Amino acid sequence: MNDVVDKTRDLAELEVDTDALHEEATHEATLDVVADAIRTALAAGDTATIRAFLESHETADVATMLDHLESADALAAMRALELRDRANVFGYLAPGCQVDIAELMGRHDLARLMSAMSHDERADLYKRLDPVAQEAILPGLAKAEREDLRKLASYEEGTVGAIMTSDYATLSPDMTVPEAIDALRHQAIEAETVYQAYIVDEERRLVGVVSLRDLLMARPRARVRDLMDTDPVWIHATDKREEAAQLVSRYDLMAIPVINGGDRLVGIVTQDDAMDVQEEEATTDFQKVGSVQNLRGSVREAGIFLLYRARIVWLILLVFGNILSGAGIAIFEDTIAAYVALVFFLPVLIGSGGNAGSQAATLTVRALATGDVRMKDWGWMIGRELVVALFLGVTMALAISGIGLYRGGAELALVVALAMVSIVVLGSLIGMSLPFVLSKLKMDPATASAPLVTSIADVVGVLIYFTIATQLLPMPEG
Amino acid sequence: MNDVVDKTRDLAELEVDTDALHEEATHEATLDVVADAIRTALAAGDTATIRAFLESHETADVATMLDHLESADALAAMRALELRDRANVFGYLAPGCQVDIAELMGRHDLARLMSAMSHDERADLYKRLDPVAQEAILPGLAKAEREDLRKLASYEEGTVGAIMTSDYATLSPDMTVPEAIDALRHQAIEAETVYQAYIVDEERRLVGVVSLRDLLMARPRARVRDLMDTDPVWIHATDKREEAAQLVSRYDLMAIPVINGGDRLVGIVTQDDAMDVQEEEATTDFQKVGSVQNLRGSVREAGIFLLYRARIVWLILLVFGNILSGAGIAIFEDTIAAYVALVFFLPVLIGSGGNAGSQAATLTVRALATGDVRMKDWGWMIGRELVVALFLGVTMALAISGIGLYRGGAELALVVALAMVSIVVLGSLIGMSLPFVLSKLKMDPATASAPLVTSIADVVGVLIYFTIATQLLPMPEG
Repeated sequence: MNDVVDKTRDLAELEVDTDALHEEATHEATLDVVADAIRTALAAGDTATIRAFLESHETADVATMLDHLESADALAAMRALELRDRANVFGYLAPGCQVDIAELMGRHDLARLMSAMSHDERADLYKRLDPVAQEAILPGLAKAEREDLRKLASYEEGTVGAIMTSDYATLSPDMTVPEAIDALRHQAIEAETVYQAYIVDEERRLVGVVSLRDLLMARPRARVRDLMDTDPVWIHATDKREEAAQLVSRYDLMAIPVINGGDRLVGIVTQDDAMDVQEEEATTDFQKVGSVQNLRGSVREAGIFLLYRARIVWLILLVFGNILSGAGIAIFEDTIAAYVALVFFLPVLIGSGGNAGSQAATLTVRALATGDVRMKDWGWMIGRELVVALFLGVTMALAISGIGLYRGGAELALVVALAMVSIVVLGSLIGMSLPFVLSKLKMDPATASAPLVTSIADVVGVLIYFTIATQLLPMPEG
Repeated sequence: MNDVVDKTRDLAELEVDTDALHEEATHEATLDVVADAIRTALAAGDTATIRAFLESHETADVATMLDHLESADALAAMRALELRDRANVFGYLAPGCQVDIAELMGRHDLARLMSAMSHDERADLYKRLDPVAQEAILPGLAKAEREDLRKLASYEEGTVGAIMTSDYATLSPDMTVPEAIDALRHQAIEAETVYQAYIVDEERRLVGVVSLRDLLMARPRARVRDLMDTDPVWIHATDKREEAAQLVSRYDLMAIPVINGGDRLVGIVTQDDAMDVQEEEATTDFQKVGSVQNLRGSVREAGIFLLYRARIVWLILLVFGNILSGAGIAIFEDTIAAYVALVFFLPVLIGSGGNAGSQAATLTVRALATGDVRMKDWGWMIGRELVVALFLGVTMALAISGIGLYRGGAELALVVALAMVSIVVLGSLIGMSLPFVLSKLKMDPATASAPLVTSIADVVGVLIYFTIATQLLPMPEG
C-alpha cells in the first residue's frame, strides 16, 4: 500500500514494532523497511542517525535487523556503534553472517572486535573461520587472549568446555565484603556475570562460590571465606554439555563453574547458554523420534547431502524391517487367495498397531528424557499400559467391526475385532517397552522412533491378523 | 552387599554422593540409605543431626531425599529446618508430596509456611489444595498475602500470570545509586531476584528497569532515572506462557516484567521458570508429533482415563484414514487376484512412504517451532525436499528391486522400483508440506504427527503402487 512512503522513510523517524519484527506474517516486510532505511542513511553517510537507531533497540533485535542486510552494509552499519556495543551485536548475529562479515574485515579490525567479544562467542567465531583467517587474527590479540582463545576452541563439540566462557568474576577468600563488592565493580565490564563470584586459591582451584546477593546482605566486616558456599555444584570441562544444562536447571543456578582435570577453575556456563543447550537437545531428541539421526544445527542451512545422510540409514533399515511384514503375508497367501476381502482390513489393522505403539513410545521416550519416569517404573508402566491399551483396542474394534460386518459378515467382523484388540495391545506394549530396552542396553531411548515402532508393530500385526483369520475362517480344502 | 551396615548407618556420618542421587542405576539405593538414616535419627529425636545433614546439601537434593520418605517423616524432618529453609525445600518437593504434607499440617503451621514461600510457588500450592483447605488457610495469612495469593491463583493455566511471581524488587526513579543499592539490600530477603529492579510510578506503572550491575558500575551521585532502561521488554499477564519463555530466551533476560490490563506491573517471570516452561512446551510438542493430545503434566502420575482420552481421538480418526487405504486396495482386487505376489511388497512400499514422510514432518515441525524455518521458506524447502527425496527413493528402490527380481522377475522388479521412488518422493513432500499447511490454517504444525503423515502416505502409496502395477503388468482377460 504505502510502499513508496516506506521505502523512502527516514531512519530517524522510523518506529519499529518489535512484535512485528518476530511475527510470521509481518517480520519480512518490517525487516525490508528497516533495511531500506538503513541503506539510505548509509548512502547519506548519516552515522549519527544509524547509531541512535541501533542504540534504541535491544541487541538481539539489532542483530535480527543486520542479519537481513548484505554483509557489507551490515558491517558499515555496525561501525556506527561503539566497539563494546558492536561486539555485543556481533555475538548475536547468525553464525553464517558472522563469518561473512569477518571475512570483509581487516585482520586488525577483526582482532580488535574479537578482543571486545565475550570469550565464549569469540571462541565460537574462531572455530568457524577458515585456518588462514584463524592464523591471521592471532597476532592482533594479546597473549592472554590468544591462549584463552586456543584453550576454549580446543574442547570437542558437545562438551561443557565448548560452551563455557572464561570471563567469570573471581574473589579471594580473605577479602572483606566492601573489598569484594569493589572487586566485582571492577570486573563488571569484562565478566559475563558478577552476580555469582568464584573464589579460587593460588593454584586456581575452586574453593567456593558467593552470590552478590549474599555479599549485599552481609555485615560489612564479614569476609568472603565466611559467606561462601564451600561445596558448590560444579562440572568437568569434558562432561557432556547437556549435563551442564541439567544441573543448571535442577539447582536453579545462574551459572555453573567448570573444572579441568587438575581441579582448576577454567570457566562457567551461564543460565542463558544452558537454556540454548536445552532447546538444541530437545530438537535432537525430537528428530530421533522421527528417525532422523545426527542432524546438528539448522535444518534451513543443512545441505542436500547432510539431509540425505541423516535420513537414509534408518529408511534402509526400515525397508528390511518391512520386508519381514511382506514375508509374513507370503506365509498366508492361501488364506488371502481364499478371502481377498481380508486385504481390505490389512492397512487399518497394522496401521492401528503402529499408531498406538508410536503414541506409547513417544510418551515413554520423553518421560525418560525429562526424568519423569525411571527404569524401575517399567513394571507398573507395563501394567497400566495394558489396561489403557485394552480400552483403546476395544473402542477401535467397535469402530471397525461395523465395516467388517458390512463387507464380510459376522465371521469376518469377529476376526477383525479380535485382531484389532490384540494388535493395539501388543503394539502399545512394544512401543512402551522399546525405550526401556534401549536404555537398558545403554542406547539412547529416543532411537525408539515412531517409524521403528511402526515397522515392528507391522510384522506383529500381519502375523496376528492372518493367524486369527486362518483359525476362525473356514478354509477351502487344499 | 553391605545392606546391614547401610541400614544402620548414622546420619551424622552419612556421605551422600550427589551424582549417585540422580543416576539411574544408583539413585533408588542411595535414597533408601538416606531415608533409613533419617528415620533412625527421627526415632532418636536427633533434630540437630537432621538439620546439619539437610543444611549441608543443595535444596533441590534435600527435596529429592524428602520426596522419598513417607509424608509424616518428611514433615518431621523438615521441621528441623528454620522456617525460611523449610519453605525453600517445600517449594522444590514434587507437587503430590506438597499436597500430602500440607494435609498433615495444622492450618496455622501451613499458613506460616506459606507466608515464607516464594509467591509463585505459594500460589501453585494453593491451587492444588482442595477448596476446604484453601478456605482454612486464608485467615492465617496477612491481608496483603491473601490478596496476592488470590490474584496469582486467579490466572488461567497456560498464561504468563499463572507462572509469574509477585516478589520482585522495586525502586523509585529519584533514588541515588547508594539509596537504590540500600533499598535492594532490604528487599533481598523477600525478592526472588535483586539483580534486576523495576522502577514504577505512583500508579505502579512500569517506567523502567535497572540492573544491579549497572548500579554497581555507576557514579554514586547518579540517579536511578539516569541509569534505567526506559523501554524494557515486557509481557502481558494474559499472554501465553511460552511467549514469556521465548522473550527471556531471545533477549537473554534474567527476568521479564509482567503488566496487567491497566499497564501496572503485577509480577515477573524469572529465567529458571522460563527454562521450566521451555522444557514443558518441548514435551507437549513432542507428544503431539506422536499424536498424543493435551496430556499436561507427568506421564508417571497420569491416570488411566487421562491417558485413554489423550490417545483415543487420534487413533479413531486414523482408523478411518486407514480404511481409505483398504478401500484403495479393494479397487484393485482384480489386479491382486491376478498377482498375489504384489501383496508381498505392499507393507514395504507404503511403509517407506510413511517413514520418509515422518522424517520430513519431524524436521519441519521442529524447525517451525524453533523459528529456524518460516512460512516464506516453503517454496524452496519443497524444491530441496524433492531433490533429497529423489536420492532417498532411488537408493531404496535399488535396495528393494533385487528382491523384486527374485520373487517376480524383471517386470515386478520394475513396478516395485518405480513405485518406491514415487511413493518416497510423494510421502516426503506431504510430510514436509503438512506442517506448513496447518500453520497457514492457524493450526498447530505439531498436529502433523508421524501417524497422521503415515496414514495419508499409506493411501497415496496404495493408489500409486497398484496403478503402476495395473499399467505395467499384463492383465488376464476379464
